[in-house]
Amino acid sequence: MADELKRGLEGVLVAESDLSYVDGEVGKLVYRGYDIEDLARGASYEEVLYLLWHGSLPTAAELDAFAADLAAEREVDDDVIETVRALADAGERPMAALRTATSMLSAYDPDDDESGDDGEATLRQGRRITAKIPTILAAFERVRQGEEPVAPDPDLSHAGNFLYMLTGTEPDAVSEETFDMALTLHADHGLNASTFTAMVIGSTMADVYSGVTGGIGALSGPLHGGANQDVMEVLHEIDASSKDPVQWVKDTRDGGGRIPGFGHRVYKVKDPRAVILEEKLRDLAESSGDTKWLDYTTAIEEYLTDQGLVEKGIAPNVDFYSGSVYDTLGIPVDMYTPIFAMSRAGGWIAHVAEYQEDNRLIRPRARYTGPEDAEFVPIDER
Amino acid sequence: MADELKRGLEGVLVAESDLSYVDGEVGKLVYRGYDIEDLARGASYEEVLYLLWHGSLPTAAELDAFAADLAAEREVDDDVIETVRALADAGERPMAALRTATSMLSAYDPDDDESGDDGEATLRQGRRITAKIPTILAAFERVRQGEEPVAPDPDLSHAGNFLYMLTGTEPDAVSEETFDMALTLHADHGLNASTFTAMVIGSTMADVYSGVTGGIGALSGPLHGGANQDVMEVLHEIDASSKDPVQWVKDTRDGGGRIPGFGHRVYKVKDPRAVILEEKLRDLAESSGDTKWLDYTTAIEEYLTDQGLVEKGIAPNVDFYSGSVYDTLGIPVDMYTPIFAMSRAGGWIAHVAEYQEDNRLIRPRARYTGPEDAEFVPIDER
Repeated sequence: MADELKRGLEGVLVAESDLSYVDGEVGKLVYRGYDIEDLARGASYEEVLYLLWHGSLPTAAELDAFAADLAAEREVDDDVIETVRALADAGERPMAALRTATSMLSAYDPDDDESGDDGEATLRQGRRITAKIPTILAAFERVRQGEEPVAPDPDLSHAGNFLYMLTGTEPDAVSEETFDMALTLHADHGLNASTFTAMVIGSTMADVYSGVTGGIGALSGPLHGGANQDVMEVLHEIDASSKDPVQWVKDTRDGGGRIPGFGHRVYKVKDPRAVILEEKLRDLAESSGDTKWLDYTTAIEEYLTDQGLVEKGIAPNVDFYSGSVYDTLGIPVDMYTPIFAMSRAGGWIAHVAEYQEDNRLIRPRARYTGPEDAEFVPIDER
Repeated sequence: MADELKRGLEGVLVAESDLSYVDGEVGKLVYRGYDIEDLARGASYEEVLYLLWHGSLPTAAELDAFAADLAAEREVDDDVIETVRALADAGERPMAALRTATSMLSAYDPDDDESGDDGEATLRQGRRITAKIPTILAAFERVRQGEEPVAPDPDLSHAGNFLYMLTGTEPDAVSEETFDMALTLHADHGLNASTFTAMVIGSTMADVYSGVTGGIGALSGPLHGGANQDVMEVLHEIDASSKDPVQWVKDTRDGGGRIPGFGHRVYKVKDPRAVILEEKLRDLAESSGDTKWLDYTTAIEEYLTDQGLVEKGIAPNVDFYSGSVYDTLGIPVDMYTPIFAMSRAGGWIAHVAEYQEDNRLIRPRARYTGPEDAEFVPIDER
């Protein structure tokens, strides 16, 4: 029925897409037909970007060229760094700083295109955005810590270079591999609110800078991007108090509270991304010898499983493990959502490029519920 | 049927709204029940903002306080002006510059709120955004013309102050009144793509800076905000060549081209906003003695009416007149869409605040049309 209100557009099919598919009943996520587990274990984030943007997995030669092009685009203009410094000095929140600095990048883009009507240009611009977001984020983090930004190293991978720019030290192999996996796992996930935002913006044939800037704004919302932060805050809270995760969960549930990192609008079983991150958390704990976060999360998951929650579909989602992984890699809590954006930008760009190929302006309707025929009274008679 | 594809979401009702209603059959636009004609003729843009944001027209005392609060927020931080200078120096396009500088404003907002869960804070932030956008735009325009920005004058109206900051000279009464009317006419228009963008972003409970930044990005798209620019470019083209608007229209139509400023997805009769702007164009032509644009547009409209287009629903829309009006006010062509944003920001903010009051995350679905069960082959075997 045409006049039925579709609040939140739940279940409304707005487009066709070859990019990703989520089967929440069995806990399956695919990018262009490939199981996320295969991609996370067997492909780098650069390969996944190539897959999302160009439709197939690259050959070794294609990947070399693609990764080199991406690495060559990591530096940002000095004026962008100046603005990042101003934002850090003003105490701006990381997602807002990323929104501003990413928007600013368009001023220095050599493809001087006003619109998204050239798909090749969109992907070139998308490549630049994807290459530069890590540089912006690392510079912002270092400046607000009172340190100088570290210049990107084109010889490192996308994941490795980010950790290097953030810490000033080349990451070890386990850290780099783990972070690369986390990027792959977050790269795309159907039409979530930020991806849909990028598509609505793209549907006006605006450029991809506008789409990605909008996506960052949407992802900054607490109902969208912030849940892995919540999990980590809980783990820190447990650690600073009782050190008894099961007691904390009991107390929280007795008080009617929710346990962050459990349950998902789409997944009714354990999130496939959580399965992989749990394994990586285990690897990291082993290699570092510090099993604290692993012990806490394992205890919470076991307890909630015993309580029958997982059976009811309230299962661990990706956010339940990603926070502990990032913490172990030395990444501050309020950078988790920006890192999500750093990965998901790949998906936003892929969706904008795909949608603009067979574009239709997205313009729904609202049911007008305001007054009818209000009589205007001039201000001096009010 | 749940699985029907709703391309462009055409006709899909996504929300209820008290804000504005468009009746395209009879050419009627209302804001909260008030006819746009009454508002344009009888109320200032400040009154209209108050109406949209607070639900009713203000008394004289309420308006005084509201307008004073708005005027007091016009200055922007020096760092924002520095970034605007950098953008102008880099040759950035005005809408992209506005997107970046508006996003940057959040760093200096005293309401340090991460989310849209406080409606009063959202409106305070919205007031600051609305007050500062004209300052950003005027500064950008002056810097790229090699001139220094003009500081805002709190004693002038929103419309008058913008023209003053742009030109360095206080506008005459007709110019100020005309520009104020243009702002009122563009303030809201149902769920167009930019307003919907702001709502999708707001539905994650992101702050209103994210919503407005996204709206600017969407409005920058050629399918959305750029049509008044197209009309003005046509008028300049006619003036630079034959000076015969009817011949130009004949030639264009013979060549299969469309006449910009005619026809609208919603209006099937003459756009009510066009009726008012035509009248103002007439006033401006009379007061300046220069009737060129008025003569051209009148000739085009008369010819297309004679040809039966208007009867078929291809009638003049708001863009057909706004360009000539802005040109007469001395505003450069590529600032027309930014001026549209300057006005529509009021509507974006109203919609975000209204939607977040009874929020539901907006997350539609895509029909997956990609490959199934692709077999992963490691890169060294591809």
